[in-house]
Amino acid sequence: MRLLIKGGTVVNATGAVRADVLVEGETIAALLSPTFTVHADEVVDATGRYVIPGGIDAHTHMEMPFGGTSSADTFETGTIAAAWGGTTTIIDFAVQAKGTSLLSTLDKWHRRADGNCAVDYGFHMIVSDVDDTSLKEMESCVDAGVNTFKMFMAYPGVFYATDGEILRAMQKARETGSTIMMHAENGIAIDQLVAQALAQGRTDPVEHGLTRPPELEGEATSRAITLAKVTGAPLYIVHLSAAQALDAVTKARDTGQNVFAETCPQYLYLSLEDLAKPGFEGSKYVASPPLRPKEHQSELWRGLRTNDLSVVSTDHCPFCFKDQKELGRGDFSKIPNGMPGVEHRIDLLHQGVVAGEISLERWVEICSTTPARMFGLHPRKGVVAPGADADLVVYDPAARQVISAETHHMNVDYSAYEGMEITGKVETVLSRGRVVVDGSGFRGSTGHGRFLSRELNQYLV
Amino acid sequence: MRLLIKGGTVVNATGAVRADVLVEGETIAALLSPTFTVHADEVVDATGRYVIPGGIDAHTHMEMPFGGTSSADTFETGTIAAAWGGTTTIIDFAVQAKGTSLLSTLDKWHRRADGNCAVDYGFHMIVSDVDDTSLKEMESCVDAGVNTFKMFMAYPGVFYATDGEILRAMQKARETGSTIMMHAENGIAIDQLVAQALAQGRTDPVEHGLTRPPELEGEATSRAITLAKVTGAPLYIVHLSAAQALDAVTKARDTGQNVFAETCPQYLYLSLEDLAKPGFEGSKYVASPPLRPKEHQSELWRGLRTNDLSVVSTDHCPFCFKDQKELGRGDFSKIPNGMPGVEHRIDLLHQGVVAGEISLERWVEICSTTPARMFGLHPRKGVVAPGADADLVVYDPAARQVISAETHHMNVDYSAYEGMEITGKVETVLSRGRVVVDGSGFRGSTGHGRFLSRELNQYLV
Amino acid sequence: MRLLIKGGTVVNATGAVRADVLVEGETIAALLSPTFTVHADEVVDATGRYVIPGGIDAHTHMEMPFGGTSSADTFETGTIAAAWGGTTTIIDFAVQAKGTSLLSTLDKWHRRADGNCAVDYGFHMIVSDVDDTSLKEMESCVDAGVNTFKMFMAYPGVFYATDGEILRAMQKARETGSTIMMHAENGIAIDQLVAQALAQGRTDPVEHGLTRPPELEGEATSRAITLAKVTGAPLYIVHLSAAQALDAVTKARDTGQNVFAETCPQYLYLSLEDLAKPGFEGSKYVASPPLRPKEHQSELWRGLRTNDLSVVSTDHCPFCFKDQKELGRGDFSKIPNGMPGVEHRIDLLHQGVVAGEISLERWVEICSTTPARMFGLHPRKGVVAPGADADLVVYDPAARQVISAETHHMNVDYSAYEGMEITGKVETVLSRGRVVVDGSGFRGSTGHGRFLSRELNQYLV
Amino acid sequence: MRLLIKGGTVVNATGAVRADVLVEGETIAALLSPTFTVHADEVVDATGRYVIPGGIDAHTHMEMPFGGTSSADTFETGTIAAAWGGTTTIIDFAVQAKGTSLLSTLDKWHRRADGNCAVDYGFHMIVSDVDDTSLKEMESCVDAGVNTFKMFMAYPGVFYATDGEILRAMQKARETGSTIMMHAENGIAIDQLVAQALAQGRTDPVEHGLTRPPELEGEATSRAITLAKVTGAPLYIVHLSAAQALDAVTKARDTGQNVFAETCPQYLYLSLEDLAKPGFEGSKYVASPPLRPKEHQSELWRGLRTNDLSVVSTDHCPFCFKDQKELGRGDFSKIPNGMPGVEHRIDLLHQGVVAGEISLERWVEICSTTPARMFGLHPRKGVVAPGADADLVVYDPAARQVISAETHHMNVDYSAYEGMEITGKVETVLSRGRVVVDGSGFRGSTGHGRFLSRELNQYLV
Repeated sequence: MRLLIKGGTVVNATGAVRADVLVEGETIAALLSPTFTVHADEVVDATGRYVIPGGIDAHTHMEMPFGGTSSADTFETGTIAAAWGGTTTIIDFAVQAKGTSLLSTLDKWHRRADGNCAVDYGFHMIVSDVDDTSLKEMESCVDAGVNTFKMFMAYPGVFYATDGEILRAMQKARETGSTIMMHAENGIAIDQLVAQALAQGRTDPVEHGLTRPPELEGEATSRAITLAKVTGAPLYIVHLSAAQALDAVTKARDTGQNVFAETCPQYLYLSLEDLAKPGFEGSKYVASPPLRPKEHQSELWRGLRTNDLSVVSTDHCPFCFKDQKELGRGDFSKIPNGMPGVEHRIDLLHQGVVAGEISLERWVEICSTTPARMFGLHPRKGVVAPGADADLVVYDPAARQVISAETHHMNVDYSAYEGMEITGKVETVLSRGRVVVDGSGFRGSTGHGRFLSRELNQYLV
Repeated sequence: MRLLIKGGTVVNATGAVRADVLVEGETIAALLSPTFTVHADEVVDATGRYVIPGGIDAHTHMEMPFGGTSSADTFETGTIAAAWGGTTTIIDFAVQAKGTSLLSTLDKWHRRADGNCAVDYGFHMIVSDVDDTSLKEMESCVDAGVNTFKMFMAYPGVFYATDGEILRAMQKARETGSTIMMHAENGIAIDQLVAQALAQGRTDPVEHGLTRPPELEGEATSRAITLAKVTGAPLYIVHLSAAQALDAVTKARDTGQNVFAETCPQYLYLSLEDLAKPGFEGSKYVASPPLRPKEHQSELWRGLRTNDLSVVSTDHCPFCFKDQKELGRGDFSKIPNGMPGVEHRIDLLHQGVVAGEISLERWVEICSTTPARMFGLHPRKGVVAPGADADLVVYDPAARQVISAETHHMNVDYSAYEGMEITGKVETVLSRGRVVVDGSGFRGSTGHGRFLSRELNQYLV
Repeated sequence: MRLLIKGGTVVNATGAVRADVLVEGETIAALLSPTFTVHADEVVDATGRYVIPGGIDAHTHMEMPFGGTSSADTFETGTIAAAWGGTTTIIDFAVQAKGTSLLSTLDKWHRRADGNCAVDYGFHMIVSDVDDTSLKEMESCVDAGVNTFKMFMAYPGVFYATDGEILRAMQKARETGSTIMMHAENGIAIDQLVAQALAQGRTDPVEHGLTRPPELEGEATSRAITLAKVTGAPLYIVHLSAAQALDAVTKARDTGQNVFAETCPQYLYLSLEDLAKPGFEGSKYVASPPLRPKEHQSELWRGLRTNDLSVVSTDHCPFCFKDQKELGRGDFSKIPNGMPGVEHRIDLLHQGVVAGEISLERWVEICSTTPARMFGLHPRKGVVAPGADADLVVYDPAARQVISAETHHMNVDYSAYEGMEITGKVETVLSRGRVVVDGSGFRGSTGHGRFLSRELNQYLV
Repeated sequence: MRLLIKGGTVVNATGAVRADVLVEGETIAALLSPTFTVHADEVVDATGRYVIPGGIDAHTHMEMPFGGTSSADTFETGTIAAAWGGTTTIIDFAVQAKGTSLLSTLDKWHRRADGNCAVDYGFHMIVSDVDDTSLKEMESCVDAGVNTFKMFMAYPGVFYATDGEILRAMQKARETGSTIMMHAENGIAIDQLVAQALAQGRTDPVEHGLTRPPELEGEATSRAITLAKVTGAPLYIVHLSAAQALDAVTKARDTGQNVFAETCPQYLYLSLEDLAKPGFEGSKYVASPPLRPKEHQSELWRGLRTNDLSVVSTDHCPFCFKDQKELGRGDFSKIPNGMPGVEHRIDLLHQGVVAGEISLERWVEICSTTPARMFGLHPRKGVVAPGADADLVVYDPAARQVISAETHHMNVDYSAYEGMEITGKVETVLSRGRVVVDGSGFRGSTGHGRFLSRELNQYLV
């Protein structure tokens, strides 16, 4: 079975070329000069369209337990929404509950995801306990294709790891070639500020932002970088939101240290002003780190241009406004942390191309190629090249659409970008050679998505 | 006529894939999965080899007049040597003589090069006069495919441009989308140090290095960056050699300013110690900026890893030891400035891969892909992709060779790397679909190389 | 003859103490605990007042030729105004005319000043020619008590020195222990911007500011610092106005390099907005470097606090609005550069104490103690200590006054601070033991002021 | 009773003057010009000597409990040794035991010191518990003249405070105008490294240094600075030893933040090599932070010159080699932390003057004037001025001596500087007008020293 995507402009991270893409089975068989003719069973007309590698969202939380509830998207609904948005791979987080083993955690997450995903998926592991047993288990995780371990400098009493635990985990990361991913906020200091705010009767959603000042993200980022330096381990900062944190990453990278960072669309387009919307509306925008004052946004775009920010992921973790965000009315610290996003990353970042913030190539790089390299999926994913998985998106750069909860496919009752006008639109999506989205709607199937056993980070400098 | 390069690993800047490359005529017709069979008239076996885009050396000086002599390679000998070394494109410099026009200069260089090159070539323009006429002529140069203009903060009385002239040229560069290339050394201050050294009887080649301290390269680099900032123009620093200059570039890039820099192999592998060799031996290593103390080298490698150095060019400008370097015996300031290098750039940088200083992908990026993007040759050059020119190198990463003047093909009587052992070797070279070098020797022809009318810089952030 | 200043608080740079000051003849004979009684012929009651060392204004231009006119204050009128303002020492600039000798220049300035000054005075030398003769003469100047040499990176064709000339002068400075003072603006680039503005018909006073962007002050400052580093000479940046320049000074000082800088009251209190006042009003505020956008002011205050700015001088160089500034109507580049200020420095800086920007001790330090140390007048000047010259100011911190051209004593028809309300007032001023200003008016005499042969910089770190 | 110190050079932080010092009772009555004659009951001849304000050692630990033993000097022996060394004020640390109150701790330390000191003394408070009670008690401490509170980011389980506790204490410091003093090492990470070293059988004294890398002092310093910034509190870093930490302080000070730091003589003169001496000899040099590689020393001298290091204290905390250091044989982590030093600070820093590292004035400033201002003792202490306490040292800059445990007066059986030759010597010492040391030996008395109730920090920028 041969499918030919014909007439489009293939955009890889190193440039755009007019070429046809021939798909045989699950992989790309050939990239062909437009003048080179070949037989195909099915032809997708990509005239005037971009043909890009399917998006890789390296930071999602499907059906994740949090504060007595769970994020609203299941692996099924979440991966279907991802497909709609041109994302053909997600990497989700398996969450070790304290006192349980990493491997049993991994099993648990496999049970949740296996057979339920519309696109391919992998796992990172959230490490809640650091002891001899779990450090040893990290090795088994690596063998099982899960070689990225997330730790938290925030959330004391829940996921929080001490600097000593971080140091030990980093030593193990260095030993195994795996990478520590860090939620870098000084949660110990933040908890005091939160307690003080509540004690003073400051309970609105905006307080979530005010009690987590950007300096404390900058501080934790610097600290994680120092610990990485002392241990010789690579480091990946997740959901970087603050100029201070970016500054720390930039300086470390200037010395050649293996420090990487991602940001998320919400930090590029939304701000503290959203969190301060009247009534309880701000709760829709509660995530950690919090949305920052607007002036941080231009810094983040700068970081994306200069590769001090290497990846854009979504931190997709939706909670419904009606039932879930409601838990924190009267106490901002009880608002479930997280926002929906998996469906709109490719479109939102394309606005950066439209606005001249990033180049076309860079759009592909931060949405697909770099996540593939960073997380050991390259060259299977992240490029349009012979032999690669045929995860492909035909993107119409001239189409217009408006984001709305009424039309999105995520299982959540609001959109953080309600009413935003978008230039560009995902037209056709292939996952491993199969058309899963096209003009006729979702044509994929739950269970099509396969677990990706990942190689080690191929992006180390 | 179809040629198939079969069994190799295609290395592009974003990753390596197992793929066959089908060449039809002058261009790449297809990249094919190894399982995809296709008819071909000729097959090159690349098993165990890399297939990489032909090298682009963006900084050469063939048959360039300098201090009463000329650099020893003609466009013919120089481009044949380039081909031997896997470089299929050079960008040479047309040198405006004071009082002459830019366009007549361009004509003059066309007369020298056209019909005499073994591989493709383009021109940068060296601007010696800045006045209303030459500024206007810059527009015509851009139209003629020459959109990069080199200026000198060194060499007072020869090429030196004042800050006011630089400012005006940068304004024009901004207006036309062209790029100013800068030789950044404070020549005015250096001339004093040189005069003082000579007055004190310090005349040996090493004085060339001692009278051009790295601080004065750092200073000029900073100054050029500020002028670029004031005018809003992009800036490309040529042959960056000093940690101080790299620091200035790094800081500017951290702010998102469009500042780029190249270094050269000699600054990565040679040092002030070579310049201090006994007798007149040091003259072989005289180039400007001068070779630096060894400790600068690790900084430069750092810059290459983190993309604060984006390109490696050679500044190939050979002068024979016997007849030419000799002109400066007893007065280091009269030693012709320049070193041979066009033949060994790809090999020398491959040692960086072997030593773990840079990745395989980065090797291709700094030797070919980035120069192609920076200098408006992409996607025709710099990538292995359908539709691109079939400038291809089959590289054997396991071969061993020793660099020597006895075996090199450049028209110069010494090698700066004499006796150096190299891992890896260029095996087969195609220029626009034609095999120009293979196991049987040089199979190309003078006149095969065509002038490249270049697009504007596609690498602006 | 003994005079006792009784009941005051003596403020030195290291702190304030309640003490009486006994003056015998021209010097301070003793500092006495209030309980220690001593006979005196005359007693000044300083109850509730500060007793501070007389101000030292290290940057004035009395009767200086500029663009076909001369600054409006003579040494007589200027030093009387200084005395009114609590400044008991000025250091003025002898200006070498091109083609003349330094020593004859010095003689010329002695003829202008000697016998005409109301307070003590010294000279810096402006070096317009750098050649073997003038470099040799620098030694004689040092012997004659003039050991600070000002050079200009601005004003091409007038005072402008090339980087090579600066380098040579710095070498001589290092050799002789003298200090180079630098007007750091890139005049070569600025001249292009000025010419372009005029060619475009932009002729208003505000263009003076717009054609001298702060980046070009930052650049020149960095360049001067590098040249100082290469030569090992100390460096003193005059009238620093821009955050970019302060940043360069700060970074150099962080490495321990002997780089110092002064700012002026106009950069702390006035801004580009004044230069943009309607009509020709802006001409009153034309000086070089130009007034900057307001946001630079807080940076300068920061520098004063942290000693990255060590001195506040006035750059007093008054030109009358009616006759002199008028010369530039219709062509901003012809407006005489300079503003009046010698009379108000102590008062204006005291507002920094009132506002909490600087401490009381720091006020004394930047207005008197540091200039004394920097310019070789310490411990004769700059401290209230036994043996020091009895240059003393009794300052009433609670008095109120309003600055106005109607009441000031400078020979100029406007005030840049017209209508500004000031807290604090100079009450009594002693110059070498003689009361020159008190409640009854000016009691000094022209000719009382003596030339100060200065020691070398005692402030080097 | 009048005592006259005659013929000397009075050195204050702002300069040296030839002056006589008249002492009446406990204070300085007058500074007199040498020509001014006055009656005196006793005359000390200071011809050829410096007369400087008595040293202030702001960091000592007399009879401090540590790891089951106590530091070897009592308040009596320690303050006598201090007097011998020209230090007339110490500020020691009252150590809150966990679960006890700050005020009872203060009482306890008063019982130890009151009536037992040979020179004046004050207290800082070490805060081990941070809760509502102790935060409230901080206010009472301030009222009781103890307004500086030391906290530890090192020593988990002993003195360690969490970032949340530090934040709360800083908020209280800001509220009360007091200052937090910080031991800035990341003790949590260090404890892991220590445990790993012991587990690997690495037990020698040098491991103390290797398990406390300088990066972890830099990190903690940065973190403390960020917490100070978030709270708006001033911060004083104690015993800064590492270039990384100095860099963090320098950068913060460049922004004008109220961050200050002290270093100690041991970090200026000793190094990791001492800690690595054969056998158990290295234990003599165990203190925290540890001695650093030699290359840190020049950075620290740079910091002293540029005031990024404002104070030199000793962290005097002696443990005898025979009985006490012995506790850690076979387990470096059990070696009592601390070194003797109170007697030699003035002499050791004078070597910096001799070597040209610091000026004469700066010597006085960092040993006496700045500690006086920083810790609220100025103008009573820290200056030679009328009204100030007559704490005076007559110092012979030309005398020679050799440091040795055989001749020192501290109650400890070794010297860290054994055999070191010193230029300069304390000759006569006055404490509040009384000669306590002169050529005839110690003439003071236990109980002469009085507790100093201190004002708030007068050094805030």
